[in-house]
Amino acid sequence: MAFEEMWEALRPIGRGDGGGYRRFSWTAADRECRDWFAQEARSRGLALDQDRNGNLLAWWDVEPEPGPGAADMVAGAASIAAGGITGDPMAGRMRRDAVLTGSHLDSVPDGGAYDGPLGVVSALAAIDLLRERGVSPRRPLGVAVFAEEEGARFGVACLGSRLVTGAIDPARARGLRDADGVTWAAAMEAQGYDPELIGPDPDLLSINCYVELHVEQGRALNAPVGVASAIWPHGRWRFDFTGEGNHAGTTLLGDRRDPMLPFARTVLAARDAAEHNDAVATMGKVRITPNGVNAIPSSVQAWLDARAPSEAAVRATVARTLSAAEEAAGWDGVEVALTEESYTEVVEFHTALRDRLAKTLGDPPVLPTGAGHDAGILSAHVPTAMLFVRNPTGVSHAPSEYASPEDCHAGVVALADVLEELACR
Amino acid sequence: MAFEEMWEALRPIGRGDGGGYRRFSWTAADRECRDWFAQEARSRGLALDQDRNGNLLAWWDVEPEPGPGAADMVAGAASIAAGGITGDPMAGRMRRDAVLTGSHLDSVPDGGAYDGPLGVVSALAAIDLLRERGVSPRRPLGVAVFAEEEGARFGVACLGSRLVTGAIDPARARGLRDADGVTWAAAMEAQGYDPELIGPDPDLLSINCYVELHVEQGRALNAPVGVASAIWPHGRWRFDFTGEGNHAGTTLLGDRRDPMLPFARTVLAARDAAEHNDAVATMGKVRITPNGVNAIPSSVQAWLDARAPSEAAVRATVARTLSAAEEAAGWDGVEVALTEESYTEVVEFHTALRDRLAKTLGDPPVLPTGAGHDAGILSAHVPTAMLFVRNPTGVSHAPSEYASPEDCHAGVVALADVLEELACR
Repeated sequence: MAFEEMWEALRPIGRGDGGGYRRFSWTAADRECRDWFAQEARSRGLALDQDRNGNLLAWWDVEPEPGPGAADMVAGAASIAAGGITGDPMAGRMRRDAVLTGSHLDSVPDGGAYDGPLGVVSALAAIDLLRERGVSPRRPLGVAVFAEEEGARFGVACLGSRLVTGAIDPARARGLRDADGVTWAAAMEAQGYDPELIGPDPDLLSINCYVELHVEQGRALNAPVGVASAIWPHGRWRFDFTGEGNHAGTTLLGDRRDPMLPFARTVLAARDAAEHNDAVATMGKVRITPNGVNAIPSSVQAWLDARAPSEAAVRATVARTLSAAEEAAGWDGVEVALTEESYTEVVEFHTALRDRLAKTLGDPPVLPTGAGHDAGILSAHVPTAMLFVRNPTGVSHAPSEYASPEDCHAGVVALADVLEELACR
Repeated sequence: MAFEEMWEALRPIGRGDGGGYRRFSWTAADRECRDWFAQEARSRGLALDQDRNGNLLAWWDVEPEPGPGAADMVAGAASIAAGGITGDPMAGRMRRDAVLTGSHLDSVPDGGAYDGPLGVVSALAAIDLLRERGVSPRRPLGVAVFAEEEGARFGVACLGSRLVTGAIDPARARGLRDADGVTWAAAMEAQGYDPELIGPDPDLLSINCYVELHVEQGRALNAPVGVASAIWPHGRWRFDFTGEGNHAGTTLLGDRRDPMLPFARTVLAARDAAEHNDAVATMGKVRITPNGVNAIPSSVQAWLDARAPSEAAVRATVARTLSAAEEAAGWDGVEVALTEESYTEVVEFHTALRDRLAKTLGDPPVLPTGAGHDAGILSAHVPTAMLFVRNPTGVSHAPSEYASPEDCHAGVVALADVLEELACR
């Protein structure tokens, strides 16, 4: 079956010795993933369009019917199939009112195989299934691969969809740097893109709707397939603890201003605050200066990721953590400062679209998620929905991320049913 | 005064924007420091010897007196003054029974100005003072600059003195690598040394005694100058916390195996254990995998540096910390393993030499230190002593490390008194 073959072809790309994936934007692994997608699109006769923001789109276009304008449409479709010109105005006109599905192919560091790729592979497999069923679209049907969804290389998640929707200033995006100081502009230019052209894309936003299939990332779904209700509000806060660097062997305990101590108390306080507010809170990234065995650190930077069903719960979690951090810092003569690096409001997916999916699929579970997605970014501009595939272990963003073949198959069938309902009727 | 001039000449070498020093072995900054020392030695008519282990030695030789063998000694001294041949057997014979002083010029990352250089500059200034006093040595008087004392580039502290004394296998030393993978052998070879010649140096160990002056590194000395009694036993232990990497937004708190939580409790437990055992304990170096904002870490590695007056107190501190780590790891479903990376037994400096210094200096404070030094390595082979200069703030291994000009001057006078007592009578 095509699903398994596609999965096997993707499996080795960017895979480390420990089984985790490092498919960072504009790297060799990313290039291989993009080439794989282009090949899969071509083999299905889909028109490949690489938009000017680094996203890829493969289109199953509507068969032209006799009538006014049909000749134009054929010409447009042919030009795209031949080249996929970035920013070709015909492309946008052609795909007005389209049904778009898809996801992303980039990964977090040491990520799992399913987060992103499952949505892309399932979209292509769903097109195969629709063709087996003998149905064809009455609206253009597209498969999207959004760029830098994880933000793993350039630090801003959903960068491709943020650019399309104008949720990020193009100049800021061009200047985003990876850990080696390479800018988004330089990295995309090295892959043949013109970074001066990035920015809002009203043509892409003229679609009818977007439906993203994704592996569920907790253990909240107890059925093969579910429909998303919302994305929790979430954000990232940076704590800067500034103490005094000193010698680990000669500095008396009472003379120390060691920022590691209030940092440690803050880690525990964040967990406590999350429990108190029915939220989740994580401190997973830390930067210690100078990070030497025999040196009391001069500073510790630590990032808090907090999410909850409501903004009030998120804010209360952060406030309670900050309060504990300030108290602990005071005990050790350490300064602490808090910076909100990002905050994303709750995303309530399009109610009518969600209900239509649920009805089509026979009322599967409807559930929120704590994870951000391109669907969340697009939902501010076009009707958007998500399908989740069951995650039996609840692990995500790690090598052991998993979904069973049976549930993946159920996901393809569900996505095909939804696309048939939305695009083919 | 020569002391201030020497200090000013050294000040800019390897100094960063924040005022911290990065004088790593065999780098350009290290080369500049070595050239400075060679110039200072030459300007005083001292014979410069670069030994085969990367250490520098400047010798004030005994004026030959008529008698058997005097002609040989003059010939030997002349050959060294002319070239300072590495490994020249004459050099060793000439300096048998010598009094050696000195310290090091390399630094930790973002280190202070005094740690190391104060001992070298004070040694040269003390020679100037002895000459002003009109005294001259009856034993050869040497000033040493030991290589890689901090271990900041190649990871093993006191590498130069360890090589001289056979405390490290030469093959292991040759293979030590810096963060970029460059070996000690390659780095010293690039500076004109033959790495095949490194290893124990019985000639250098035929000296009479070694006295190192160093800035005190805590706030334990409440007088301008003190004499060292001992170096505390100390060691480094690595804690490996292994949990389960997962998504920060979607993993329920109860489903997490987050290694950051027991790590945080261990930081606090180490402090508590140190307080309980009159020890010092520091967790200053941490490595988090994958270290992403939106990822629960899969593992946290953290290093414990523990020191105390007695081995029993060090061991009790580590044991209490480990016990807390294991308990905390159990609460969160995390594995923890402890590895002892190094342990150095207590160094009790030579009692008779220490008492002679104290008597010469009018009974200044005698105190132990928690910091390792080349003097500690040499003390296993030759009578060794240390002088400390007061540190008013207790800061060391950081840019704000400081000693007052008055105390530095008192250090020079004290060192001159000691050298006069040991070498000139």
